Formats: sequence, C-alpha cells, structure tokens
Amino acid sequence: MKKTIAVIQLDISRDKQENLIHAEYLIKEAAAQANIIVLPEMFNCPYNAKTFYKYAEVEFSETTKWMADLSETLGITLVGGSIPELEDEKMYNTSYTYSKGKLIGKHRKVHLFDVDIKGGITFKESSVLSPGEKVTTFDVEGLKLGVAICYDMRFPEMMRAMVDHGAEVIVVPAAFNTTTGPAHWHITSRARAVDNQVYFVVASPARSSYLSYKAYGHSMVIDPWGEILSEANELEEIIYAEIDTGYIKKVRAELPLLQHRKKNLYS
Amino acid sequence: MKKTIAVIQLDISRDKQENLIHAEYLIKEAAAQANIIVLPEMFNCPYNAKTFYKYAEVEFSETTKWMADLSETLGITLVGGSIPELEDEKMYNTSYTYSKGKLIGKHRKVHLFDVDIKGGITFKESSVLSPGEKVTTFDVEGLKLGVAICYDMRFPEMMRAMVDHGAEVIVVPAAFNTTTGPAHWHITSRARAVDNQVYFVVASPARSSYLSYKAYGHSMVIDPWGEILSEANELEEIIYAEIDTGYIKKVRAELPLLQHRKKNLYS
Repeated sequence: MKKTIAVIQLDISRDKQENLIHAEYLIKEAAAQANIIVLPEMFNCPYNAKTFYKYAEVEFSETTKWMADLSETLGITLVGGSIPELEDEKMYNTSYTYSKGKLIGKHRKVHLFDVDIKGGITFKESSVLSPGEKVTTFDVEGLKLGVAICYDMRFPEMMRAMVDHGAEVIVVPAAFNTTTGPAHWHITSRARAVDNQVYFVVASPARSSYLSYKAYGHSMVIDPWGEILSEANELEEIIYAEIDTGYIKKVRAELPLLQHRKKNLYS
Repeated sequence: MKKTIAVIQLDISRDKQENLIHAEYLIKEAAAQANIIVLPEMFNCPYNAKTFYKYAEVEFSETTKWMADLSETLGITLVGGSIPELEDEKMYNTSYTYSKGKLIGKHRKVHLFDVDIKGGITFKESSVLSPGEKVTTFDVEGLKLGVAICYDMRFPEMMRAMVDHGAEVIVVPAAFNTTTGPAHWHITSRARAVDNQVYFVVASPARSSYLSYKAYGHSMVIDPWGEILSEANELEEIIYAEIDTGYIKKVRAELPLLQHRKKNLYS
C-alpha cells in the first residue's frame, strides 16, 4: 500500500493570520499530489518562549477549526505541525492531526527543550510550557502513524515505544537550530529510521531572515533503510515522498532487528 | 582526566598464529602512545560461521594468555576484540579485556547476526554460536567502559543500559560488511554517541583482499557530541584519539538528555 506524503517547510512570520493564509496556499498546492501533508513545529507563530502565550489557543478555536475545514475540503490528512495550546491555565506545544474534517490524533510535546550550549543556543521551554504525558500513535490512511515533537526525537526509547504500538511512519514537526542542526539533525533522524525500520519524517520551519530563532530547515523524508528520499534546503519548499508499507515489511524481514531484541536483558 | 585510545584495524589471515604475531607487532607500536588499545571482532580468525569452531578456545588458553602477557609487559589495557570461545560444548563470540595482566572484563555477543538481505549479505551466526546473556560494563584506567560486539550496537536499548550502568566510553569490536557498512555504520555509530553522550569506539577488521567476508573497515572514535575524532579507511591502520571525561561532563551539562528522560512513559 502506497501513500504520498508532503512536508511544507513554511517560512513563518509574526502574524498568525498571515501564517494561516500562507500555509493554506501551500497546503492546496501539496494536496494536488499528497494524501498526507505535514506542517512544522509552532507553524502559526515564531518559535520564541517569550511570545508563545500571545498566539496560544484553546482546542477547537481558530487554528484547529482551520485545520478541520481545510482537511475536509481537500480530502486530506493534515499533521498540523504544532501550535501553542491553552488548557486550564497551562500551555502546551501541541500537534493536532485532522483527516477529512475529523480530529484523529493529538500529541503534546513530552520533552521540553531546556538547554544552555555555550557559544551556541540557550532556550528554556519549561519556563512557559507544560509537558505532555503520553506517547502518541493512531491509525490514518491505512497506516499507523506516530507523532512526536522536536526534542522528543532525541529519546530513542520514546521512538521505540511508538514502534511497539505499531508505528510504521513517525512524523516529527521540529525546529532544530543552527547549532544543534548541523551537528545532530541528519544523524538522529536517519538513525531513528534505521533502528526502528520506519519512515521517519521531520518537518522544520524555513530559516527566517528576520525572526531571532534560526531554524535549521532541511525537512526530510527518510525510508526504513535510512535513505533520505527527499530533503529541503534552508528556504521555504514543499518536499514529497512515497510511503510504501511493502518496503517496511521487506526491510523488517531481511534484517529482523525488531524481532532480535532481548527485552528482558536491558533493564 | 584524559586517556589515549588506539584502534587497530587489523588485516586478518586464516592462520591464527600469524594473526597473533601480526597483532602483537601493531599493539607494540600503538602502546608507545596509547593507554587503551582495541582490536576488532574475531581478530584471530576469519569472520566465517563455517570455520569459527576450528579457531575456538576455552578461557585461559592460547589467545587469552597472549592478551594477559602482552597487557602486562606493555602496561596497557587491551580490549581484545573478540574470539570464538568454547565452554561446555557451546561456542560464543567473546570479547576479553585485560589490563596490566589481569582479566577485568568479558562480554559474550548477545545479539547474533542472522540476516538475509537480498542481493546483499546472508549470515547466520546462530547456526554455530550461542548468545551471551548480559550487558557488560566495568572500570578500567579511571573510566567506566561498556563493551558490546557488532550486531549488539544495533539495539539502542542495550547501549542505554550500559549508560545507566555508568558507561563513559562504549567500545564495539565489529565487522560490518560492504552492504550494511555504507548504509548504516556511520549513522548508527554517531547516533549512539550523540544519544548517550559517550565516546563511541568501533573497531573493524581491515577489508581483506582474499577472505570471503568483506569487512567494511572505517574504524572510528566518536566524541559525545557526535564528531568523528579519528577514522580509518578500508585498509590496515592504527587510529588514535583522546578520551576526555571533562568533555563528557560538559556535553551532558549543556544538553542534559540523560536527565530529561521520562522513564515511566516509555513502557
């Protein structure tokens, strides 16, 4: 079974309305070819802990309604990157997936990005965000999808948990930066695909020339053997690739990594 | 605290005596600079399931005595790659580590290499070898070392278990081949270093022009940020690098991946 996936490496502005209009334009373009369309992390606002609150919404308001409508009109599945979500006076970094008008998946970023790399990047998501508390997988388009957000992908045990829940495609809206990106983006993404024998899809914002956070870009679709099927550069771009469940089965049969695990030995 | 490690990418022959004499010559050369010297997987025999038995030994006989003597004479730590070990009518793929004459670490390969990649490589270690049943870490040279063998490194949960036991350096004698090597050797090795924030050391045989199994070569020492400090090509070579525990601490403090895990969430 084959499906086409598109990743929109969106160039994000400070204006939420503008971001939605701009994303909609590109989603319509991608929908001509793709069944599943993926947006980047925090796609309706700048990636900036100080201003997330300004853009935050409760569920079923502006941005999620827009996702529902657009996915229904176009007959697609939209992995809606992530947005700042408000609930009970807490704020989350949340990814909603809508398919043909219906909410079918929701992931709140579990691992918050609190780092302080000398001469590189300092960021403290936990100063404003609360963590999610579950691993997210769901069925859509005849596939089992796992969704995680950015720093979540740093944790191999979380990726494994998705695969133990049956994930065939892991989708990660993510905004690595120009310090961690060149050092770790390709290595980590490709190793997750190889270890778990899944399609691994990373969706970054484009590198903005005016926002302070410099996203790495380089959105990719990687196959279960670790090959990069499609990769963006730093600028705004839509990339496409084919997801083939037959190929997942072939790789898992020829190199049976998942079967060869000795789970009683690792704890 | 700083130590120098050397990896000997040995060109292996069918003659066990010749392999020991040849390895000894290179170990003596490396000992002029290095505190810890690493040999490749199955360094005293060809990597061939059909002939392992011919070379197999019980503990404290020819090859291990040679390791004990050499490590004592030279005042070094020798991670003695691996050899076919016999015990109670079973055969194992076993790595011995001797330091200054004393046996201080022993690992039996846990995950046996049973793969059948169409148009690539077919191998069935479990036809002749029995699996080890533990994760191996030990103290030496003021460091906590983890040792695994080749296909073991494919399992991120095993690498994590070593780190949970305190590993600062993970050493993997390994013989990837010309199918899996180009596809996965660099990705997997570097991701293990990045995820676990350890020095990751992979020791391959040289690519032999006459043995049937074509080892990938490309022995490497990788630092905890994922940088390749030293890498061999396909031919016989000794590579050197510095292990710096201060750098491990720095990386783990700036990007606190190991602290940020949410262990209750993954099972």
